[in-house]
Amino acid sequence: MDERARKTDVKLQGLARHLVADVNQKRNPSIAIPLRSLANVSFNERRKILELGDQKQARILFNVGMARKFMQTFLLGSACKELLEQGKTTSIRDLYYIAKHTLGDTRQNTFEEQDESDPIIEDLEVTIDALREELNLFASNKGAMVGPLTIVDSGDTIDLRRMGSGGWSVPSIVEENIVELKKSEAQFVLLVEKDAVWRRFNEDKFWQKHRCVLIHGGGQPPRGVRRMLRRLTTELKIPLYVLVDNDPWGFYIYSVVKQGSINLAYESVRMAVPQARFVGLSSFDQEKYDLPDNVTMKLKDEDERRAKQMLAYPWFQRKEWQRELQYMLKRGKKLELEALSNKRISFITEEYLPRKLKEGEGKGWLV
Amino acid sequence: MDERARKTDVKLQGLARHLVADVNQKRNPSIAIPLRSLANVSFNERRKILELGDQKQARILFNVGMARKFMQTFLLGSACKELLEQGKTTSIRDLYYIAKHTLGDTRQNTFEEQDESDPIIEDLEVTIDALREELNLFASNKGAMVGPLTIVDSGDTIDLRRMGSGGWSVPSIVEENIVELKKSEAQFVLLVEKDAVWRRFNEDKFWQKHRCVLIHGGGQPPRGVRRMLRRLTTELKIPLYVLVDNDPWGFYIYSVVKQGSINLAYESVRMAVPQARFVGLSSFDQEKYDLPDNVTMKLKDEDERRAKQMLAYPWFQRKEWQRELQYMLKRGKKLELEALSNKRISFITEEYLPRKLKEGEGKGWLV
Repeated sequence: MDERARKTDVKLQGLARHLVADVNQKRNPSIAIPLRSLANVSFNERRKILELGDQKQARILFNVGMARKFMQTFLLGSACKELLEQGKTTSIRDLYYIAKHTLGDTRQNTFEEQDESDPIIEDLEVTIDALREELNLFASNKGAMVGPLTIVDSGDTIDLRRMGSGGWSVPSIVEENIVELKKSEAQFVLLVEKDAVWRRFNEDKFWQKHRCVLIHGGGQPPRGVRRMLRRLTTELKIPLYVLVDNDPWGFYIYSVVKQGSINLAYESVRMAVPQARFVGLSSFDQEKYDLPDNVTMKLKDEDERRAKQMLAYPWFQRKEWQRELQYMLKRGKKLELEALSNKRISFITEEYLPRKLKEGEGKGWLV
Repeated sequence: MDERARKTDVKLQGLARHLVADVNQKRNPSIAIPLRSLANVSFNERRKILELGDQKQARILFNVGMARKFMQTFLLGSACKELLEQGKTTSIRDLYYIAKHTLGDTRQNTFEEQDESDPIIEDLEVTIDALREELNLFASNKGAMVGPLTIVDSGDTIDLRRMGSGGWSVPSIVEENIVELKKSEAQFVLLVEKDAVWRRFNEDKFWQKHRCVLIHGGGQPPRGVRRMLRRLTTELKIPLYVLVDNDPWGFYIYSVVKQGSINLAYESVRMAVPQARFVGLSSFDQEKYDLPDNVTMKLKDEDERRAKQMLAYPWFQRKEWQRELQYMLKRGKKLELEALSNKRISFITEEYLPRKLKEGEGKGWLV
């Protein structure tokens, strides 16, 4: 077991020791699980991330409503301990199958469906304060990366300057023990919302000319990409620019990258990049770049609802953001990155983004 | 323009020349577009692929119902010609934006939505007999690849033996002018349905031990992965094994990889791998590998419908396949690859698949 696995293992053992102590002292065994509901999530103004509060909930063994979940928590904890011991990683779907069995001669299964085991994994994460990646569990991997950077992944040295048109597929677990960041000449990181637009930037060798790490997450970036963004910005000490559609979904992607999400607030500290810079598309860009009206789309009802929600987010209270969101609502229109191709195919890489980067904060990008 | 681009360019020019000739001879300009509907699709028993028949439809300029589509066909043809001249590739969404504009002072747009331009692209493909990749258009890219193989992608030499846990992200366009296959020690190709299971095989270094190219397509493989499978099997002259869930969706993935799909029958000749070998999960595997009943799932109504459809597919008429599909229906159950983890986490890489490969055709795998 490596150092990192040992640390997580110690936390899992702590949980078990606590249980044994309860039994020995003839107490009703219980564990205290931090609440993950909205009521226990708040925005830390100083750190600029979403955080979990101090509220906890007891999970008690001898309690009709809780016994099953109590059993499940320890079953999954034990399965993760085995993963750590074997040095193997797996998916949360796989873990569900690993831990599923029928109890004795009953017709009771330990888990009926995966939607029973997934929340227990999250309980386990917050209870012992370990990300699922530290429990050797991975999520889906979407996303690819290229740039003036060398990495070591599972012992293989990979030069991200020579990855062709495909790029390096960003794995779900990019913790330090698996992926190391080595020699870099990158000046910044550019996250592009869509793989198709990422490909435009790669084909035009934008990352070479502007010396940046070029990465996409296939829409809302998966955990591996978010964790990688966090590591790139903190370890290489370079800024992150986020390029998304001009619609509430694009803004939400930026918001999650920046502050974390309410559902997974406990991970923000390891994943969020509070200083992430938004380089558009801005609601003001149709006029700024003289784009015809026929490449815009009407905001849908759900878009409007989403935009109004975001107006109330604490991290969108700066007047630039209020202005941005209000103008989107006022226009009633949205705009995709691909719409810039209506000017010409490499407009986005040769004119749009270089101009925004040059204009700097306020005019070119927002924080 | 490289050789391949020039070939496609000549085809596009042919289309335009034909139009000019019509005009000069005062004919009503028209083009003949091969029909893509089910009625014009058949299974070629000898070549074992789905093929488009000879039926064509005329698209005429001076015809109220066709004038708009006629204009659109030439607009997109012209946009693709520009792509070829510039040596750039782009997405079909991008192409929609590139070709969209408002006609004169009218309120008529050349295209209203992308669902108007996508079928025109397919018309163009079949009319001039060029895949969209040859028109420099790409689809989404999902899928990753590792193995004992060196490739050259856009001038970069990439050793797929040293891609760490992530792998090389398979791009959407893998035509010979972009991706070349170089030094290989691979004995076969293994396509795994899901990225999570692919990761298990990569982590366990299955591809090293068994000397195979390991690839996934994130569910139904995208065009780039299918084209790559075709190139790997024909150029390296090695067989392809397909590992999917035991459900109609998994079988359908195998079916598309093998014979092509009805919708895109005209591409089969460039994408299908008729000799692809199915290594499961088979409907007989629950018993064969002694898996508990609680890891199975009930077939849904739509699963049953799908399985019954497949029973009628010409390429599933061999008695082994009929037996396979009928047993799935009789059991009324399905089984995911992850269910094998219920035995132990590396059961699939260390026992399940090696045994199937060893048992050979009929017992271990089906064609």
